[in-house]
Amino acid sequence: MPKLHVFNSISLDGYFVGENGDLSWAYNVVPDPEYDAFVANNASGEGALLFGRITYEMMASYWPTEQAKQAMPEVADGMNKMQKLVVSKTMTKATWNNTKLIKGDIVAEIQKRKREPGPDMVILGSGSLVSLLAQQGLIDSYQCVVVPVVLGKGRTMFDGIQERIQLKLVDSRAFKNGKVVLTYKRPV
Amino acid sequence: MPKLHVFNSISLDGYFVGENGDLSWAYNVVPDPEYDAFVANNASGEGALLFGRITYEMMASYWPTEQAKQAMPEVADGMNKMQKLVVSKTMTKATWNNTKLIKGDIVAEIQKRKREPGPDMVILGSGSLVSLLAQQGLIDSYQCVVVPVVLGKGRTMFDGIQERIQLKLVDSRAFKNGKVVLTYKRPV
Repeated sequence: MPKLHVFNSISLDGYFVGENGDLSWAYNVVPDPEYDAFVANNASGEGALLFGRITYEMMASYWPTEQAKQAMPEVADGMNKMQKLVVSKTMTKATWNNTKLIKGDIVAEIQKRKREPGPDMVILGSGSLVSLLAQQGLIDSYQCVVVPVVLGKGRTMFDGIQERIQLKLVDSRAFKNGKVVLTYKRPV
Repeated sequence: MPKLHVFNSISLDGYFVGENGDLSWAYNVVPDPEYDAFVANNASGEGALLFGRITYEMMASYWPTEQAKQAMPEVADGMNKMQKLVVSKTMTKATWNNTKLIKGDIVAEIQKRKREPGPDMVILGSGSLVSLLAQQGLIDSYQCVVVPVVLGKGRTMFDGIQERIQLKLVDSRAFKNGKVVLTYKRPV
């Protein structure tokens, strides 16, 4: 049955977005081919991507552009081809290639998808969605890329969580650009 | 010349203390002799410990007790013997063994100590002190123990920082108990 994963960059003070939704800090590192290969490999899978509206709109306005294709050709190709799900009550259509709009109860929708054969799902960004689904015990694993920066202000992807979530570390991998990828599973 | 270091546990959402100053989550892991040896080794150095009042009072009420000596004999011995500095405008005396009370301007005091021969200093806990001294560019390295837990609420040790701090990763070490120790230096 499909699993639900989260993949996000976080600052050393725990924020997945800085003030005013800023993400530039996550890209402000020295070039590292090994890290780029790791990300490209992540974006080449069979999984479906799951977004909240804000992250979706940002991604949909970037990855189909010529700029993205030139800057990160493999990742752009993967992002544009992969199946995408966007959760929003206000959007009326989603025009990015291979995207399905989910307007109903997202908790019920994920529960249903996890009971039926289908691709794994990966949440990128989308803090409200992470908080909501984490609280419901629906997230199977987290890949957190710890970026070597302190922001001082921002938002965690776990804002509003009411109960602590104890996780199990399954991997840690440090890259030359100073990023450390920490992988956790929900204990079963 | 002496260096100033920070050693703190943080949750996956970036907090060094949970709601109401709770620290229990940092100890709620499976026993791991390798991690315990790492901490005992850390506490056996020649350095001086630097605390804000709140952390000092908590530590001073624990480490000299029989309970601490039985639970973590080596760490307790190290903590009680090491030179300690506590920063407070309201305290009138500090009674824990080998403790000096600093009532004046802490920034000037640290600047002075860093210009003269002396032991390295390590801040434990003491978020207000970390924020203040980090902003002044006075902290040379950070050891952050990432604990495999999401708290949802708490306080980061960088609250109130006005400018981003870019760091340089120098080491990462994963332990069997699920903790990952990330070590950063301030770029020179």
